[in-house]
Amino acid sequence: MLAAQDWLAQQATSRPGAIALIEAGRTWNYAQLNEATAALCGRLAQHGVAPGHRVAALLPNCAEYVLLIHALARLGAVLVPLNVRLTSQELRWQLGQAHCDWLLCNKDTESQAAALQGNWHVLAFEQLNSPIENPFSWRECALDLSLVQGIVYTSGTTGRPKGAMLTHANHLWSALGSAFRLGVLPHDRWLLCLPLYHVGGLSIVLRSCLYGTAVVLEPRFDPDAVDEALRHQRATLFSLVSTMLHRLLDLWEQRGVPPTLRCALLGGSGAPQALLERARALGVPLAATYGLTEAASQVATMPPHGFRKKIGSAGKPLLWTSLEIVDDQGNPLPAGEIGEIVVDGPTVMSGYDGQPEATACALRNGKLFTGDVGYLDDDHDLWVVNRRTDLIVTGGENVYPAEVEAILLEHPLVAQVCVVGVPDEEWGQRVAAVVVPKTGAPLSAKALDAFCEGKLAGYKRPRSFHFVEALPTTNSDKVDRRTLIERFPS
Amino acid sequence: MLAAQDWLAQQATSRPGAIALIEAGRTWNYAQLNEATAALCGRLAQHGVAPGHRVAALLPNCAEYVLLIHALARLGAVLVPLNVRLTSQELRWQLGQAHCDWLLCNKDTESQAAALQGNWHVLAFEQLNSPIENPFSWRECALDLSLVQGIVYTSGTTGRPKGAMLTHANHLWSALGSAFRLGVLPHDRWLLCLPLYHVGGLSIVLRSCLYGTAVVLEPRFDPDAVDEALRHQRATLFSLVSTMLHRLLDLWEQRGVPPTLRCALLGGSGAPQALLERARALGVPLAATYGLTEAASQVATMPPHGFRKKIGSAGKPLLWTSLEIVDDQGNPLPAGEIGEIVVDGPTVMSGYDGQPEATACALRNGKLFTGDVGYLDDDHDLWVVNRRTDLIVTGGENVYPAEVEAILLEHPLVAQVCVVGVPDEEWGQRVAAVVVPKTGAPLSAKALDAFCEGKLAGYKRPRSFHFVEALPTTNSDKVDRRTLIERFPS
Repeated sequence: MLAAQDWLAQQATSRPGAIALIEAGRTWNYAQLNEATAALCGRLAQHGVAPGHRVAALLPNCAEYVLLIHALARLGAVLVPLNVRLTSQELRWQLGQAHCDWLLCNKDTESQAAALQGNWHVLAFEQLNSPIENPFSWRECALDLSLVQGIVYTSGTTGRPKGAMLTHANHLWSALGSAFRLGVLPHDRWLLCLPLYHVGGLSIVLRSCLYGTAVVLEPRFDPDAVDEALRHQRATLFSLVSTMLHRLLDLWEQRGVPPTLRCALLGGSGAPQALLERARALGVPLAATYGLTEAASQVATMPPHGFRKKIGSAGKPLLWTSLEIVDDQGNPLPAGEIGEIVVDGPTVMSGYDGQPEATACALRNGKLFTGDVGYLDDDHDLWVVNRRTDLIVTGGENVYPAEVEAILLEHPLVAQVCVVGVPDEEWGQRVAAVVVPKTGAPLSAKALDAFCEGKLAGYKRPRSFHFVEALPTTNSDKVDRRTLIERFPS
Repeated sequence: MLAAQDWLAQQATSRPGAIALIEAGRTWNYAQLNEATAALCGRLAQHGVAPGHRVAALLPNCAEYVLLIHALARLGAVLVPLNVRLTSQELRWQLGQAHCDWLLCNKDTESQAAALQGNWHVLAFEQLNSPIENPFSWRECALDLSLVQGIVYTSGTTGRPKGAMLTHANHLWSALGSAFRLGVLPHDRWLLCLPLYHVGGLSIVLRSCLYGTAVVLEPRFDPDAVDEALRHQRATLFSLVSTMLHRLLDLWEQRGVPPTLRCALLGGSGAPQALLERARALGVPLAATYGLTEAASQVATMPPHGFRKKIGSAGKPLLWTSLEIVDDQGNPLPAGEIGEIVVDGPTVMSGYDGQPEATACALRNGKLFTGDVGYLDDDHDLWVVNRRTDLIVTGGENVYPAEVEAILLEHPLVAQVCVVGVPDEEWGQRVAAVVVPKTGAPLSAKALDAFCEGKLAGYKRPRSFHFVEALPTTNSDKVDRRTLIERFPS
């Protein structure tokens, strides 16, 4: 009964003249975005893209990416957004794991795509220019909320990424919960400079379409360009990670906070307290959020008026979502006690694609066991103590040590390795590797760095290598990551 | 999965300190409203109110009414809001028709309730003061969205009111659709001076709770009091009917529009063009809406920025709702052609309680045939030409001629009668009766008016009686209401 039309088609009827997308000096209203999406649907279908197909997108932020997101939803195909910063080896693994039928690229990623051979057809946006036989047939399509909209890969604790399957319903409830926490106004404009292949970026596109409001799309985060766009496009909302905040504060301390901005949604990782204090002093309307791919982005969000009073907390769960803090046995803990964050609600993914064991581990009785650690205070506000014990967040990208360690262990002269995140004022954390070489092996940082090239995306590669004779261990003989971090770099 | 808690319990966790309700100088935040509701649940349960019970409310606007709405939802009981302006005869009929188990009143309506004997227990709010055995057990309850929240009576075309069954899901989607059309902000305050027994008032309570925003409740519409409350309580939203607008404009032309008001939602009936022009000239942020009880209030709404450009249109359907204009055979008509308004979407009622024939007539393939007449223009904006051909809207209250005619026909000296709405600057329309007396009968307006007393609510009673020898008829020998109205009063 909610499936009369997809969201874009509804907005094209409901707010045809309202601005939907602004990118690189181009502007689409909802009627135009709908037409362009219908045309793209027609072209994709003519090439053979069909309902149920899995379509990987290897694209930087661009208007075509936004069209693709809407077109695949309309076609009933599944989006598999790929991180353009990954190596060919990493990309090939994800494409195979997701059984992709198609790989969409554009001129910027063509050569990257060409290097990826497999059971998928490669299609460049520039090829999609044939006349459309029947564009109108794609204008109004029923949207089945229970269908998977996208499979979004997250770094895996076990060394391999996992593809979180997010349904249209997941995104719908996420958008509604966000609307009631942050407010929504017909003239809102959300500046999007996060990558569209991350859930934080993707969710802005879907959410804004549901609201009938505008997205101001930037190709990437560039402090001057973003600051200029915030002002010139009169953006009211903006999603960012702490690395971006750090750089923007340098500008805003000179120029002031962009005047139309009513909410800057800060996600990604626990930002340094000093940075938050700086933002508060400057009057930045920060909303701090805790979210993860497996819950379609925001789980808990502290809105700006709360942020000013309780700096550092991620606030309360969005409407319809509930939070529990549990101990190692899964028993709920009282307020103030630290444990694992467990999420329940309609934004929780339907599972990891093709990884039943990982799904069973993360989803128990429909609840998402995040692996992240935190506590609820007496007001039921969430404080995230640290992300999954071993997760490194660097410049908004998640890096799982296990993945980096697995690569380094392939080196013939490495006996043991532990990869950790080291605090970094600008990047939040940077990746560092503590290596135990095989006895007597002449191992250099340079050699290891060269070894990682082509195997690990740049942001995952250790910024520093530290050679030790042994790693500290816990009672159960596991590497004692915490002790290592505390001792680091000594 | 959306049923973790009812909306009030969620807000009590999520925004405990946010203001939920302001009434007669008293203020409740969400934590307090939740506690008070839990206490009322306990007391109602101790008296025997149980899940599935039907609980009629014969109450003026008051904070207790708001608590009752939330408490019945939490208990899984069904609210049957009664219009306090009805006569005992009319009320008794509705109580019986709805098979009510309980009749809730307060000191203001006690004597009215006492006069109503039947198979229901009468309970006054003032009796609900016993100590509660276990208030906490009522604090968090699962909410099944498919349950009927309320049975709201609408005047019937066939002479008897019909009870529209509205589910929690109907209200949920209505609230969401309204949010995206009008915007919602955490600090919003909705002034409510419409009766809570009408869907227009009831929906404000449910919607605001879902948003976590505040309701400023007024006992009734008094222009000075409402204007004062709008200003003093810094109301941002306000629902009204054209009679109210008429009176408020007189004030606002002196004092200016209350400065915090961002949207005045005008429903009820097609307001005179001159009135709308006056409001526009003054800069009133009017949103014109077309709604009806059977669709949980708003169906289509023109937001303030559109109203200024296209005065008189009810705009586009809310998100998830769709509109069709059909001919007498139910075939869709193109833009510009006038026909019956048909509504499809998740806000459409599940049916009329205990009236399968009326339900089958109104709901066909899940679509609501409203009986109202209008057209869609080339922009897909709705223009309501007139409400159900024979519906009279006077001061925001719906009056069905059939109901009034049925009473007048009971008079021994009345041969034929036709009740019509006559344009009235202040009330929109007033009720007039055109009567054919039995041959030679000495019938006076005074006698007929006295005859109506006690049988019809005051607002339904004809303001004037006109005696004629015969009524104009159509080709099919029905009374030609349209011709009669055109000729009126000559």
